[in-house]
Amino acid sequence: MQGLGLQNEPACSIQQMVHAKRRPGGCLHALSHLFEPRGVAIVGASADLTRIGGQPVRALNRFGFRGAVYPVNPKYQAIDGLRCYASVADIGGPCDVALIAVPAQAACEAVRACGAAGIPFSIMLSAGFRETGAAGAALEAQLRQAAAEVGTRLIGPNCQGLLNLTTRLYAGFGSVFQEPELLAGAVSLVSQSGGFGFSVLMSCGARGIGFRVALSTGNEADVTTPEVIEALIEDPGTRIICAYIESVDDGRRLQAAGRRALAAGKPLLVWKSGNSADGARAATSHTGSMTGCYDVYRAAFRQSGIIEIFDIDDLADACRAFLGGVLPAGPRVASVGISGGAGILFTDRAIARGLTLAKLGEDTNKALRAAIPSFGSIANPVDVTASVFNDAALLTGVINAMLGDSEVDQLAVLLASLPGDAALRTARAIRDAIARHNKPIMLAWAPSRKRAEAARALLDEGHVPIYESPVRVAEAAAWLAGFAAARSAPPAAPPTIARVTMPAGDGPLDEAKSKTLLAQIGIPAARECVLPADTKTLTALNLKFPVAVKLLSRDIAHKSEVGGVVLGVASLDGVGTAIRTIRANLTRQRPDAAIDGFIVAEMITDGLETLIGVVRDPSFGPVVAFGLGGVMTEVLKDVTYRVAPFGANQARAMVGELRAAALFGTFRGRGALDVEALADAIARVSVLVAQEERIMEMDINPLFVRPRGHGVVAADALIVLR
Amino acid sequence: MQGLGLQNEPACSIQQMVHAKRRPGGCLHALSHLFEPRGVAIVGASADLTRIGGQPVRALNRFGFRGAVYPVNPKYQAIDGLRCYASVADIGGPCDVALIAVPAQAACEAVRACGAAGIPFSIMLSAGFRETGAAGAALEAQLRQAAAEVGTRLIGPNCQGLLNLTTRLYAGFGSVFQEPELLAGAVSLVSQSGGFGFSVLMSCGARGIGFRVALSTGNEADVTTPEVIEALIEDPGTRIICAYIESVDDGRRLQAAGRRALAAGKPLLVWKSGNSADGARAATSHTGSMTGCYDVYRAAFRQSGIIEIFDIDDLADACRAFLGGVLPAGPRVASVGISGGAGILFTDRAIARGLTLAKLGEDTNKALRAAIPSFGSIANPVDVTASVFNDAALLTGVINAMLGDSEVDQLAVLLASLPGDAALRTARAIRDAIARHNKPIMLAWAPSRKRAEAARALLDEGHVPIYESPVRVAEAAAWLAGFAAARSAPPAAPPTIARVTMPAGDGPLDEAKSKTLLAQIGIPAARECVLPADTKTLTALNLKFPVAVKLLSRDIAHKSEVGGVVLGVASLDGVGTAIRTIRANLTRQRPDAAIDGFIVAEMITDGLETLIGVVRDPSFGPVVAFGLGGVMTEVLKDVTYRVAPFGANQARAMVGELRAAALFGTFRGRGALDVEALADAIARVSVLVAQEERIMEMDINPLFVRPRGHGVVAADALIVLR
Repeated sequence: MQGLGLQNEPACSIQQMVHAKRRPGGCLHALSHLFEPRGVAIVGASADLTRIGGQPVRALNRFGFRGAVYPVNPKYQAIDGLRCYASVADIGGPCDVALIAVPAQAACEAVRACGAAGIPFSIMLSAGFRETGAAGAALEAQLRQAAAEVGTRLIGPNCQGLLNLTTRLYAGFGSVFQEPELLAGAVSLVSQSGGFGFSVLMSCGARGIGFRVALSTGNEADVTTPEVIEALIEDPGTRIICAYIESVDDGRRLQAAGRRALAAGKPLLVWKSGNSADGARAATSHTGSMTGCYDVYRAAFRQSGIIEIFDIDDLADACRAFLGGVLPAGPRVASVGISGGAGILFTDRAIARGLTLAKLGEDTNKALRAAIPSFGSIANPVDVTASVFNDAALLTGVINAMLGDSEVDQLAVLLASLPGDAALRTARAIRDAIARHNKPIMLAWAPSRKRAEAARALLDEGHVPIYESPVRVAEAAAWLAGFAAARSAPPAAPPTIARVTMPAGDGPLDEAKSKTLLAQIGIPAARECVLPADTKTLTALNLKFPVAVKLLSRDIAHKSEVGGVVLGVASLDGVGTAIRTIRANLTRQRPDAAIDGFIVAEMITDGLETLIGVVRDPSFGPVVAFGLGGVMTEVLKDVTYRVAPFGANQARAMVGELRAAALFGTFRGRGALDVEALADAIARVSVLVAQEERIMEMDINPLFVRPRGHGVVAADALIVLR
Repeated sequence: MQGLGLQNEPACSIQQMVHAKRRPGGCLHALSHLFEPRGVAIVGASADLTRIGGQPVRALNRFGFRGAVYPVNPKYQAIDGLRCYASVADIGGPCDVALIAVPAQAACEAVRACGAAGIPFSIMLSAGFRETGAAGAALEAQLRQAAAEVGTRLIGPNCQGLLNLTTRLYAGFGSVFQEPELLAGAVSLVSQSGGFGFSVLMSCGARGIGFRVALSTGNEADVTTPEVIEALIEDPGTRIICAYIESVDDGRRLQAAGRRALAAGKPLLVWKSGNSADGARAATSHTGSMTGCYDVYRAAFRQSGIIEIFDIDDLADACRAFLGGVLPAGPRVASVGISGGAGILFTDRAIARGLTLAKLGEDTNKALRAAIPSFGSIANPVDVTASVFNDAALLTGVINAMLGDSEVDQLAVLLASLPGDAALRTARAIRDAIARHNKPIMLAWAPSRKRAEAARALLDEGHVPIYESPVRVAEAAAWLAGFAAARSAPPAAPPTIARVTMPAGDGPLDEAKSKTLLAQIGIPAARECVLPADTKTLTALNLKFPVAVKLLSRDIAHKSEVGGVVLGVASLDGVGTAIRTIRANLTRQRPDAAIDGFIVAEMITDGLETLIGVVRDPSFGPVVAFGLGGVMTEVLKDVTYRVAPFGANQARAMVGELRAAALFGTFRGRGALDVEALADAIARVSVLVAQEERIMEMDINPLFVRPRGHGVVAADALIVLR
């Protein structure tokens, strides 16, 4: 799958780029000039303020933007009380961003004019490019070319613009640009969908989540999502970064941005769509991009600390959790509630999300036993019961004791709809406990607004995350724990491998050549010998029977499909028979194919059949797949992925991710398998394919994993070179 | 797993029960006397209106309940201005419900007094029973006994009470009982959790979902959740029934209630918790009930049209969808939006939930092509683009054309945050289209409240479901389609089997006897013979080699664990050797075990190894499990369940539910397997175990499924009788 007409951008940040774009007569344009421009031109401004060219004039003029606003349209003298310029060349004042809303055919000219006027960023609102087909794609290529030539960076086309709520910058069109009361905050959003992406701001705002920057990138002819993420990592006003993506052309850059965000302590939440076949088709017609393999995206997210979310609720809830400002030290959660049901719901979901239930310490148990009535529960999940209505002090001591327990990394407080004074006392206890212990506390609490105002105000002031349901608290706890774990994860540390000797030529390497290449990185084949094609009589083979006999042919990549493999051959005579059988099969099915010889290989009888595959993903480049051989992979799709290269720790995690992972341990009376050797082999393959760009595909299938201490054996291999 | 101290209730409805309880001097108590009582006594009423015994006095007195309110407590003359009675015997007026809030030790006496006073329903708010341990369980048994003796039905103990928002009946304690402004509506709730269950009312009310009846059942010493559901099916004010459960003792009754709700057209939404091991342990300490196997619950839900939900969002969103009042004819969905991203999100989730994307008809395509700009999409998901801001009429024609398309069963309209006049015109078009076509339309729409008031009012008036995200619209569409499909599903139709001859005695049947029983319901074994234990010399066996040789011993249920099975025996001599090997293994491992003989059976070489298992679930009785044999089941847990009995259509569905289902079709060059014979065998087993209550466990493993037309073969079987 290839992007249609898009090429990857060089891996540099906007910051580097704007430094590079320091042109004669221009000024140094720092990032703040995109997110915090001194002036904005609206090219193709409309006097009808409800139209696409009119909406940003109105919004920039009326909603409190402090910078200059320059409507540009030769038809008008003034729009909405602002002077209207005949062309961008006439603008005298500082102008860092041009919004362009002209017909697609006039877009190139408009971009050239903006570049000539020294405007460093052009946001192309117009549609009618790549998303309409080949002619539009050609026009988009011209547009990109024009922008590059004149030195203006291009956002869009086919986008809805840029919003910065802390500077009241409403530079775009659509419903949110008509909405002056959007909540400002510390969350920033980059979205490949304009209309839908921006509508997220309304939903989140209604839930108290405020935004800083929101940028719609549309077709990404020039500026791409990873690049915007990089800029947002540098943006001091942004604490959390959200990205809605349908596809990225440069997946490696997205991963790099993810790792940088992780290092900067800014959670990067990615909402990926276009994941079903039908959804992917729709995404293609939407922005003209092909979406890559969803499983690879997910693997890439995990590898680079990116947090995947699946809906607006996730986005709002995860932001709320991270805005709490405290990360847990580990995965151990506890909950205390006034209703047993809530604790059970929290626990079910927490376990499902990979968290562990904290085992409370003896001191805590003692404190709880003293405080909680006999019909409650002092075990985690702790239930103080509805007795809290008769004794409001009951909860406060319990919360403090639990959060102070060194076994507890985060605490869920499940208050059902507790109102009034009891809620207020609990809120105070929570604030006190956080101040004392600096661990996350999150609430499930759905009280009547007016009977809980004081308590809510106190909790909001302390940025304590509140959710309606215990299930959502568990999700939020998992996001926090996942981010904390990613931050403290050891580096990937790919192993060092010797430089290999690559065969010349391209296309598929035969089994023998493929195995020779693998042997160079320490992955052994079975004991085997290669018989020449003209073998007539067989003398003793220095091999242990049973053996496998396999065709070697430069013309046949998948030899078992043409009857080119005979397994379980028990004798020397059998080898001769097998060779004749293979010859006969080939004559019948592929008479054109050359016979280069036959491999005779000892059969591995004490190993588990696995496979290592490598593909070049259009977004992420070389990707390693690992799974069990046979029906496990073919029928059950029990396969896991990583973007190459990576270390043995990641490879071990891959083994553990298989649904059939238990097969690698002691099983049905046999000992554990050599997972260390397996992980090492997977990691080495990942380094090899990352180093050797000529390797397009690789398939080690089967790779036998033998008992611990006995390593792995590549029983077959196919490598395809470019 | 057994319920601790709970026995199953007889399968009768509350209606039947109250008819049966027509006592001398009493009146006929219909259902309305529980949900709509004429008078309520509060036994253990407190003059402190913030305490458990005081809250219901205050709420019933002040929140608009039209019936009589009788505080009962010898300590007071009056509470909150109401006459207070010394005992329930003193109440002169009609009284259908007694709320009891006395210490646990006084509970039996209070219940006896209520029964003696002719009060048909006692709601025991007090805790301190089964949830506290053995002494509490004994007290609870006495309580149940007392209620039965005096003829009052008991709700609770350890519950929070009963709410009927249409009659302003606030008969309980906790935060919702202090909240007079809860929204009344047509959704009813029965919950095993009081505090948490009732807090759902606050959350849903804030989202515009109103409730009718909400009842907390606590420990369910007498009245159980299925029984309450039955009553709610009869309740004319209830259109949707929600149940929060941790466990039910009588799962069959829950299923029966599900089927009745389905027939009545009332969706039954069940939220099951206590599903992780930790959650189940917490549920046990919460109400003293053990939770059964979650997989069995889920199977039971599917079999009886029960809709499983997983969070408050699901509950509110599903209610909203069903309150729309229109069901789709099938699973084909279409979407139209003003932003491509929203359509992709909808599509991804709809596909993931088993819906199909409608292929629009040619007339629709023509209409869409004429209306939608080139940079939009006329394929489903349809994208009219942000052009709708320049042309508000664009959407209206498209909506009508799409809903009118006979290929479309439901339509999602994805409006992002479309405000103002465009929204209003769209709302009108939606109302018109629904009136014309009577198909569900649902919206994803998150506009600024004040810029969309008129449109929202119009849609609310028409009960058009509105969600914030396209993902939630897809979930809602799936609930509607699932309920519609369940309503039109063919009946289970279990096959008729001949009456079988059951062996006498109990405990495990040996392989030969187990197979004989299976043969009676038409499940054949391999060709085999039984050799007596004293076999010394072997003459020709009339069997085809290879054969399996297996120990027959009344003392050994799992013979392969003691070396009692030798497979792949190739000759008559080999049989003798195998017998000697088995004897030696037994002597070493189980010298005490009797040898009853040896089975020699032809090996099946052309079949796929599967298994049929039967267990008696503590909640659901006989349950049939089906899965693949070997590591598929052991490692991958690729097993599916059904509550017995059921028909071959359900059994076929079980085969299709396996992750490895593809193995039953044509695979790697071999033809499809005999799924018909397999489904028939599974269904017959389900009928057998439902009929024969002495069968406690059954394990047909392996059951070989041979190529189509060749049937199935039970290669081993173990049946355990009571």
